[in-house]
Amino acid sequence: MNITVPASEFYIPTFDDVTEARDRIAPYVHRTPVLTSTFFDDLTGASLFFKCENFQKAGAFKARGASNAVFGLDEEKAGKGVATHSSGNHGLSLSYAAGRRGIPATVVMPRTAPDAKKDAVRGYGGIVRECEPSTAAREAMLEEVVAETGADFVHPYNDHRVIAGQGTCSLELHEEVGPLAAVVAPIGGGGMISGTSIAMSNVAPETKIYAAEPKNADDAYRSFHAGHIIEDDAPQTIADGLKVSLRPRTWHFVSTHVSDVLLATEAEIIDAMYLTWQRMKIVIEPSSAVALATIIKNPELFKDKRVGVIVTGGNVDLKNLPWM
Amino acid sequence: MNITVPASEFYIPTFDDVTEARDRIAPYVHRTPVLTSTFFDDLTGASLFFKCENFQKAGAFKARGASNAVFGLDEEKAGKGVATHSSGNHGLSLSYAAGRRGIPATVVMPRTAPDAKKDAVRGYGGIVRECEPSTAAREAMLEEVVAETGADFVHPYNDHRVIAGQGTCSLELHEEVGPLAAVVAPIGGGGMISGTSIAMSNVAPETKIYAAEPKNADDAYRSFHAGHIIEDDAPQTIADGLKVSLRPRTWHFVSTHVSDVLLATEAEIIDAMYLTWQRMKIVIEPSSAVALATIIKNPELFKDKRVGVIVTGGNVDLKNLPWM
Repeated sequence: MNITVPASEFYIPTFDDVTEARDRIAPYVHRTPVLTSTFFDDLTGASLFFKCENFQKAGAFKARGASNAVFGLDEEKAGKGVATHSSGNHGLSLSYAAGRRGIPATVVMPRTAPDAKKDAVRGYGGIVRECEPSTAAREAMLEEVVAETGADFVHPYNDHRVIAGQGTCSLELHEEVGPLAAVVAPIGGGGMISGTSIAMSNVAPETKIYAAEPKNADDAYRSFHAGHIIEDDAPQTIADGLKVSLRPRTWHFVSTHVSDVLLATEAEIIDAMYLTWQRMKIVIEPSSAVALATIIKNPELFKDKRVGVIVTGGNVDLKNLPWM
Repeated sequence: MNITVPASEFYIPTFDDVTEARDRIAPYVHRTPVLTSTFFDDLTGASLFFKCENFQKAGAFKARGASNAVFGLDEEKAGKGVATHSSGNHGLSLSYAAGRRGIPATVVMPRTAPDAKKDAVRGYGGIVRECEPSTAAREAMLEEVVAETGADFVHPYNDHRVIAGQGTCSLELHEEVGPLAAVVAPIGGGGMISGTSIAMSNVAPETKIYAAEPKNADDAYRSFHAGHIIEDDAPQTIADGLKVSLRPRTWHFVSTHVSDVLLATEAEIIDAMYLTWQRMKIVIEPSSAVALATIIKNPELFKDKRVGVIVTGGNVDLKNLPWM
């Protein structure tokens, strides 16, 4: 693939940005544990190392990028707060990080989002601004918030500070377990895969990076094979953190660092999620299970290899589980 | 309380038995992680250290005692296998340990036990022998198995090898986190509380030991206050691991080492379980949640103190959760 991205268009974060992020966010995020499972090693024939970001602050790896953005602001900018649009983990995480710094966070959410999600953002101290459920309404509302408050817009993934923050996760994984043949991480907008690409290409360039995606939201898969960004049109998948599409900053890394994009069906995702709860006794969200689902599905890629698995988060409605 | 237990009646395990158990079972059990939770620290005003035996082999601390019994047998006895009656974690754990040693384990279970539980025992290599659902039928069947095979009967808790094995859990907790004002563990038959008593009274005699019990199965509470063993009569509680009653070996420790027995209602147990899944992202079984429920209920006992919480297991039917 031969993709040219004009350098002037945006800043591509570097390994220095990742190590700076690590030092910056250390007081505010967990160094999450790495778990292993005899059951899944037997099932896959691989040695799997699960980096458990479900145990992260606010329940997901997104706390890393959000904390890096929030704590990287100078005093004057910080005083005006931060804002984003997200009905998921990024909104929670930005609220968490802003709360830790003592600055306001405004999260634009569709009025149709579940009350539980709005309450969770408020629980972390965030301000919820409701909009009509459309991209246009969301963007208009966000612009309005920024115009009113001067808040710094922290995009969920198309932001170099966020990408650098997410990169600290694989850095820890490598420090903890040493050389890996591969790392598998779910892909939605591509923030985690981008951060992983920066970190691993510097500390372990021989490690292959696989992006795991729901078959029902396979925009990264199609983009990867087409050689340019293809957006999904309102995909339906239980892995609700992975519905969004790549953007230029993350496409840069997907197109240059990823070995392959692997797909999993809804049933495979639910099976992997259920098995993880049952055998590893950890609560993971559907998006997290996509990585394991693709490993189970492609044993020839991982057999007899040491493989890192990014368990991205654990925020799930316990009263509405997909196997009930 | 002034309880005299004739020394000749049974062997009371010592701290040496616990340290020997630790060395014996080390290759077969996990040194489980200790987790902390800002959420629960804020909620209780205490500093809680969760010893996560839900991550243990076979999904519960019972793997410790079972492994100690199985690997302590001499070659000749081992060759005849082991046997027990249990429709819960002890049956699973004995099957697991016997499987690791390559010897047969027979588990007597009522024919009315859920197929999932029988299949789980078989999944670990155990042989299920079904009996009518009564104590008499269970004991008769077990005697039959022992007479047929010469198998060694490993009682779920009234067994000094099992108690010594369970004691390794608190030993690890103490090594990991240092001095604690208190340790809270659920109580059913009392194997875990007994092992905890031996370990803590030797390595940290100032640490108070609290037993946490479902109000609906409060035989340990009533025994503690009466000064002698009172048995429950078919108690109904969601904490199905805690329905059994104390026996002489465990009563010895409850009557001499426990500061108090704390009770939790069914609703309090379910709330604590749900909150643990939601905030800590770990799968724990109802019996495990009883300890946390009593801490939430008795803040005056634990405020500003460092408190160990034994999370005893994570074996739960994910398709039949108490909050659904």
